[in-house]
Amino acid sequence: MSKITKKVKDILSHYESDNPGTKTNLARILGAGRLGGTGKLIILPVDQGFEHGPARSFAPNPAAYDPHYHFQIAIDAGLSAYASVLGMLEAGADTFAGQIPTILKVNSSNSLSRAKEAPDQAVTATVQDAIRLGCSAIGFTMYPGSDQMFDQMEELRELTAEAKACGLAVVVWSYPRGGNLSKEGELALDVGAYAAHMAALTGAHIIKVKLPSDFIEQGEAKKVYDKHPVPTATLADRVRHVTQACFNGKRIVVFSGGAAKSEDSVYDDARAIRDGGGNGSIIGRNTFQRSREDALAMLDKLVRIYKGQE
Amino acid sequence: MSKITKKVKDILSHYESDNPGTKTNLARILGAGRLGGTGKLIILPVDQGFEHGPARSFAPNPAAYDPHYHFQIAIDAGLSAYASVLGMLEAGADTFAGQIPTILKVNSSNSLSRAKEAPDQAVTATVQDAIRLGCSAIGFTMYPGSDQMFDQMEELRELTAEAKACGLAVVVWSYPRGGNLSKEGELALDVGAYAAHMAALTGAHIIKVKLPSDFIEQGEAKKVYDKHPVPTATLADRVRHVTQACFNGKRIVVFSGGAAKSEDSVYDDARAIRDGGGNGSIIGRNTFQRSREDALAMLDKLVRIYKGQE
Amino acid sequence: MSKITKKVKDILSHYESDNPGTKTNLARILGAGRLGGTGKLIILPVDQGFEHGPARSFAPNPAAYDPHYHFQIAIDAGLSAYASVLGMLEAGADTFAGQIPTILKVNSSNSLSRAKEAPDQAVTATVQDAIRLGCSAIGFTMYPGSDQMFDQMEELRELTAEAKACGLAVVVWSYPRGGNLSKEGELALDVGAYAAHMAALTGAHIIKVKLPSDFIEQGEAKKVYDKHPVPTATLADRVRHVTQACFNGKRIVVFSGGAAKSEDSVYDDARAIRDGGGNGSIIGRNTFQRSREDALAMLDKLVRIYKGQE
Amino acid sequence: MSKITKKVKDILSHYESDNPGTKTNLARILGAGRLGGTGKLIILPVDQGFEHGPARSFAPNPAAYDPHYHFQIAIDAGLSAYASVLGMLEAGADTFAGQIPTILKVNSSNSLSRAKEAPDQAVTATVQDAIRLGCSAIGFTMYPGSDQMFDQMEELRELTAEAKACGLAVVVWSYPRGGNLSKEGELALDVGAYAAHMAALTGAHIIKVKLPSDFIEQGEAKKVYDKHPVPTATLADRVRHVTQACFNGKRIVVFSGGAAKSEDSVYDDARAIRDGGGNGSIIGRNTFQRSREDALAMLDKLVRIYKGQE
Amino acid sequence: MSKITKKVKDILSHYESDNPGTKTNLARILGAGRLGGTGKLIILPVDQGFEHGPARSFAPNPAAYDPHYHFQIAIDAGLSAYASVLGMLEAGADTFAGQIPTILKVNSSNSLSRAKEAPDQAVTATVQDAIRLGCSAIGFTMYPGSDQMFDQMEELRELTAEAKACGLAVVVWSYPRGGNLSKEGELALDVGAYAAHMAALTGAHIIKVKLPSDFIEQGEAKKVYDKHPVPTATLADRVRHVTQACFNGKRIVVFSGGAAKSEDSVYDDARAIRDGGGNGSIIGRNTFQRSREDALAMLDKLVRIYKGQE
Repeated sequence: MSKITKKVKDILSHYESDNPGTKTNLARILGAGRLGGTGKLIILPVDQGFEHGPARSFAPNPAAYDPHYHFQIAIDAGLSAYASVLGMLEAGADTFAGQIPTILKVNSSNSLSRAKEAPDQAVTATVQDAIRLGCSAIGFTMYPGSDQMFDQMEELRELTAEAKACGLAVVVWSYPRGGNLSKEGELALDVGAYAAHMAALTGAHIIKVKLPSDFIEQGEAKKVYDKHPVPTATLADRVRHVTQACFNGKRIVVFSGGAAKSEDSVYDDARAIRDGGGNGSIIGRNTFQRSREDALAMLDKLVRIYKGQE
Repeated sequence: MSKITKKVKDILSHYESDNPGTKTNLARILGAGRLGGTGKLIILPVDQGFEHGPARSFAPNPAAYDPHYHFQIAIDAGLSAYASVLGMLEAGADTFAGQIPTILKVNSSNSLSRAKEAPDQAVTATVQDAIRLGCSAIGFTMYPGSDQMFDQMEELRELTAEAKACGLAVVVWSYPRGGNLSKEGELALDVGAYAAHMAALTGAHIIKVKLPSDFIEQGEAKKVYDKHPVPTATLADRVRHVTQACFNGKRIVVFSGGAAKSEDSVYDDARAIRDGGGNGSIIGRNTFQRSREDALAMLDKLVRIYKGQE
Repeated sequence: MSKITKKVKDILSHYESDNPGTKTNLARILGAGRLGGTGKLIILPVDQGFEHGPARSFAPNPAAYDPHYHFQIAIDAGLSAYASVLGMLEAGADTFAGQIPTILKVNSSNSLSRAKEAPDQAVTATVQDAIRLGCSAIGFTMYPGSDQMFDQMEELRELTAEAKACGLAVVVWSYPRGGNLSKEGELALDVGAYAAHMAALTGAHIIKVKLPSDFIEQGEAKKVYDKHPVPTATLADRVRHVTQACFNGKRIVVFSGGAAKSEDSVYDDARAIRDGGGNGSIIGRNTFQRSREDALAMLDKLVRIYKGQE
Repeated sequence: MSKITKKVKDILSHYESDNPGTKTNLARILGAGRLGGTGKLIILPVDQGFEHGPARSFAPNPAAYDPHYHFQIAIDAGLSAYASVLGMLEAGADTFAGQIPTILKVNSSNSLSRAKEAPDQAVTATVQDAIRLGCSAIGFTMYPGSDQMFDQMEELRELTAEAKACGLAVVVWSYPRGGNLSKEGELALDVGAYAAHMAALTGAHIIKVKLPSDFIEQGEAKKVYDKHPVPTATLADRVRHVTQACFNGKRIVVFSGGAAKSEDSVYDDARAIRDGGGNGSIIGRNTFQRSREDALAMLDKLVRIYKGQE
Repeated sequence: MSKITKKVKDILSHYESDNPGTKTNLARILGAGRLGGTGKLIILPVDQGFEHGPARSFAPNPAAYDPHYHFQIAIDAGLSAYASVLGMLEAGADTFAGQIPTILKVNSSNSLSRAKEAPDQAVTATVQDAIRLGCSAIGFTMYPGSDQMFDQMEELRELTAEAKACGLAVVVWSYPRGGNLSKEGELALDVGAYAAHMAALTGAHIIKVKLPSDFIEQGEAKKVYDKHPVPTATLADRVRHVTQACFNGKRIVVFSGGAAKSEDSVYDDARAIRDGGGNGSIIGRNTFQRSREDALAMLDKLVRIYKGQE
C-alpha cells in the first residue's frame, strides 16, 4: 500500500485538474519504497541502451544486460519508480507486476543517428502500451531549443491528453539542446529554469531536468537577472530557482545525475537538491554501472540523505 | 450571473451563425466583471512564461510564479476574462471554477526556438482540454506573413470548427511577422487592418491585434490609401480603421498593450481604443510585472476609462 | 422556387452520376434570380478581403466592409449565387437564409504570403461548415502549374468526395500559376483550356476560369494547334474552345472579370462568353468597388446581355 | 454474361488469396467483349486529357471531347474494359451502366507540372468513387526509380487494401522514370521486367508496362544477364521475359502502345505480345486520335490478332 | 502440431507481456519443421525480387520465378518459416495454407531507388494483410544510422502495436546503414550489437542481424570495449556478444547469410551461430539461387548442424 501522508496530500492538491486515476498513480509513486510518504523520490531510469548502445551501458556490469536486473535492484533498494523503454518493461512487467511503480519511456533517441541543430527522438511506445504493462506514468523527452521542438511539443500534447484521459501520470525529461543554444547554454540556469517551466506549462506532472550551472545564456534573460537578482551561488540556490519556475513548487521536479561519477559528488548533488527544495533524483548510470552491492550501498545513502539522515 | 444588456444583445446579434452554446460563452465574457454589460472588456493574458521564459516574466514580481496569483488578481480587478496556457489553467481551474471566464491558449511559441522567415507556434492544448477545464473560449495565435501562415490557418480551421461545435468561443491573436514583412511593417496600419480582417474571415469571435502605427507597408495598399484616404493621424483614427476591417465593427476587437511601459501611455492607449470604437484591452506584462497593489490601481483606472469616467 | 425549365433539365442530365441532393443544389443555382431557368448564371464572389486585404477591396466603396452589403446586392440584382469565405457567410447566413444560393469558398490565399514557384492556398473551411450555413456548393481554387498542384488536387479530391456525399455541388476556380509557367502563359489559350479540362476531370460541377488570350504557351500544344487548328481570333472563339474542353459543353463553365475595369469591356466580355457558349460570369470587384447604384445598373445590363436582350 | 471458360478459370486460380468479389470483377474483365473467355484482353484507356491536355489529346478527332464517345467506341469495338479518370467516368457511368467493365484511374499527372528527379501523380479519386460508379477495378500509376517511389507505393498499399476488401481488382501502370534512370533506361529490358515484378509484388491483379527494348540499364543486372542469358532478340522474346517476371505468368500483364503510330507497327506489337505470352494491349491514343471508323477497323484487326486469326 | 518442448517453453517464458495469440504464433515457428522443439530455427526469406529485381534474384534458377517454388522447398526442407512480401504470399497462401508458418514482410526497398544518407523502405503491406493470409508474424526492416531511422521506428511502433494486439509475432531485420556510418561500420561488432539491442528495445520477438566483423566503429564504444573487453576473436564469440545484447539471450536472434557463397562458408557460419548461442539462420539467396537438389542438400546439412549432428 502507498503511504498517503499529509505531505503527499499537499503535493497531490496542486494537481487540481487531474482525475482520480492520475492522482492514484501519482500517489503510488509518492508512496512507494523507502521514501514513500516523504514527498521525496528516487527514480531508476534505464534508457541508456537506446541512447548509447548496449556495451557502453552494460559492459561495466554485465549482469545489467538482463532486463530483470533493473526491476530487482529498484525494488531491493526501495526506490520510488523504475522507468524504461518498451522492450525492457515487456521483458519483466509480468514477473514484477505490482512490486514497484513503472514509467514507460515513450520516445527514444540513439547515438547512431545524427542531428546537429534539430535533435529529436522517435516515439517508440504508446499510452496503450503503458496501460497493458501496468505502468503508472509515461515518460517523454523534449529538447527545448531544437529545431524539432515544436513537433516534439505536439507529440507530447497528444500523448499527454491520452495519458491523462487514461488515468496515467506524465513525466517530462526537458533537456535543452540544438538550435542556437551554445554547449555551455545547455546547462545554463536561465535555460534550465525555462526548460522546467515549459514542461510545467505543457501539463507535466513530474519534471526532470539537469542540475544547472550558474551560467546565463540568453541576453534578454541576463538583463532581467541583473535587475532582479536571484541567489545562484550554490547548487542549492539554483535548484531553488528551478523549483520556483515549476509553478513556485507546485509541480514535482527531479534532477538527473548525468554520467557515472564519484560517489561523493552524487551525494553532494542530492543534498543540494534536498536543500534547494527539489523533489529528488533520477539516477541511472550511477546505479547500473556499479556492481549490485556498490549500487545498493549508494542508493541506501541517497535515501538517507533525502530523509535528512545524512 | 452575466449582465445581458441591450449593448451585449446587439453585439451577440452579429454572431448570427453561432449556436447557443457559443453565444452563452461570449455572453459570459461580455457580462463578467466591472465592465460586464458595457460591450467593453479587459482580458488578462499570461502566456509570457512560454514566450519569454519564467524569469523574464515573473522575476519583477515573484509572487507571479504561482499560477493562483493570476486568477486572483483578474477576479479582484473585475476583469472580463483570464487567458493562459494549459499548465497554468490546470493549476487553478478547480480552485477558481466559475469565478471568471477563462480562455485556453491552445498554441504557444518560445524564445529558445529560432525562426527567421517562418515563425510558428506549437499546438500545445486541445478543445477537449478547454472543455474539461471549464473554459469559455480557446485562444490561437497566427502570424500573417509567415511562411508557416497557411499551415497555421489550417490548424486554426480545425480547432475553430471543433470549438464552435462544442459551444466555445474563438479568440485569435493575429500578429504579422516573418516572410517578406519589414520590422516596421509588423505594426503598419495596412498590415494590422489586414491581419484583423483575416482573423474575422477565418471565423474568429474575438480578434486581438497590436495597436497600429501610421506606416503603410504594402505598395499596392498605399495606392489605395492615397486614392481613398482614411483618417490615420491619431491612434483613435487608426483603431477606427482596424475596427472597420473587422466587418465594420461586427466582430469584437481588442488591442494588446505590448511590453511593460509607463502608466500614462497605458491610459492613453485605452482612451484611443475607446474613442476609436475598439472593444478593449488585453494587458499582461503591464499587469503582472507590477506589484499587486500597483496593478490593481492601474486596472481600476483602465476600467474607469472604458466606462468613460476618466 | 427554382425555375426548372427544359434548359435546366438538359444541363442537369449531364451530371449523371450525382445524387438528387447535389442535383437539387445545382438546380437551385440554375433556377435562382433573373437568369433562373436560362442556363446562364452570374455569381457574385467576395473573397478579395482575403486575397488583397480589406482596404484594397473595400475602401473604394466603404459600405462593402459590412458583410450584409454583399448578400443584399446579390439578392437585389437578381444574381444566381453569392460566393464568399467562412467569416463573411457566417455574418449573414441567418439574416439572408433562403434568399439566394450561397457558395462557401473553402480555401484562400493572401497577399502577405509569398510563394514564387509554389503558389498555394490554405484550406480555411470545411464541407461541414457549408452544411451548417445552408450553402448550395463549396468553392475551391487550384493553381495548375504550381509546385503545390498535386497537393491541392488531393485536398480537392477529399473535399469533393465529402461534398458530393453530402449533396452539395463543387465549384472549382482553376487558375494557372507558378512552376514553369510564364506570366503570359497564365492566360494562354492552351493553358486555360487545359486548366478547365482538369477541373472537369477532377469532378467539378461548375468550372471557373479566366478569359483566355490567343497566346499558346506549350510547345507540344502548339504543334497540335498548328496541325488541327481551332478558331481563336475572337474572344467568343476562345470561349468556345474552353467550353469544348469542358466535356464538349457538358460541364458548366463561368468566366471571371478580373480587376475592376470600364463598363464597356465588362459588357463586351459577357457578350463573348454568351456567344461562345459559356454559361456566365463571376464578377466581384467590378460589382462591389462601384457604388451600389452603379453596380446594380451594371448587373442589370449584364443580365439583359445574357438574356440576349442587349 | 461473362464467358467463364477453362482458360479464364485457370487464370483466376492464380489469384488464390482474393475474395469472390474481386474474382468476380476479374472474371467480368476477362469475360467481356469479343476476346471474352480467351484470356486475352484489350483495354481502352483515356487519361491523356490529364496527362497532355485536351487539345493534344482530342483535337485530331474532336468528337472525342465528349466523354460518351469513349464508352461507346469501347463497347462497339467489343473491348474488355474502359479505363478513365473520375470526371470522364462520372459523365457516362449512368448511361452506359453494365455495358462494359470500367476501371477508375485513381491517380493522375499532368504536363503543366514539373518534376525532374521525383515524378509523381496526385491521387484524384477514391475506392469509394469506384464503387459508386460501378467500376470493376481501380488503376494506379507508379514510377519505379522516382524519388517519390516509396510514397507512391505507400499510397498504392492503402488503395489496394481498400479495393481488395471491397471486391475490386487493382490495375497497376508501372512506368520507370526519374531518379538515376537514364532516358534509354526507362524502356530497358531489365528495368521493365523489374517494374513489372514490383507491381506483382505489391499485389496488383493486372500489370501494365511498356514494351521493352533490348537495352540493359543496371550494371549489376547486366552481369546476371551475361551469366544467365535469356533470349532478347525479338520483341516476343522480351515480352516473354517480362511475363516471366510476373510470377512466371501467374499475373495478367498488358502492354501499352505509346504515342499514336502507324497501323502496321500497332499490329506488329500485338503479334509480339501474343507470341510472347502477354495478355494483351492497352491502347489509347492510337484509338481515339483516329476517326471512329479507322479506330473500329484497327481494333477489329487487333481482336483478330489476339484470337490468332491474323 | 507444433512440438512444445521444455526448450520452447523456456524461450516463450521470456515473452512475458505477450498475449496467448502471439505466444501461439511464436510456438508455431519454434515448433515447425525438422528443428521444431530445439529452440533453433531456419527461415527462408524471399524478398530479393523487390530488393534486387527479378533477374538478379531468379535467373540463376528460373524455377524460382514461380511463387509456389519457395513455399514448396521450405516445406520439403523442413524449415521453420517462410518469409516473403505481399504479392508472393498472396500467390501461394491458399495452396499451402497450414503447411508452414509464414512471415509477411511489410516493408520493402528496391535498387532502382537511390538513397545515400537516408536509406528507407516503403511500407508495402499491413497487419490486416498478414491476418487475412494466415501469417504467424510480420517482418520489418529498419536501418539504424539512417537519417530515416526515427521515421522507420515510428512506423515500426504502429505496426508492432497492431500486430501484438492481433496476436501476431514481430520479426525485425535491423541493418545499420546510412547517416555517418562507414561502409566497414555497417558490419562492425559494436554497431551490430547496438542494432540488435534496439530491435529488442522496440519490442521485437525475433531479431535478424548480419554476422558481425571484429571492427569497432564508434569512438565512444571503443573506449568501453577497451576497458571492459569481451571476447571477439572468433565469429562464435561475436555471435555471443550480439546474443548478450538481445536481453542476455531472452530474445530470439537469427543471422543472415548475405550473398550467395560457397557451401563451406555457409556451414561455418551456422556452426558459429550455434556455438555462440544464436538461434539460427535466415538464408535466402543461398537457397533459391542453387538448384532445388543442391538447395535441399545444403539445407539438410544446416539442419543437422543446428541439431549438433555435424
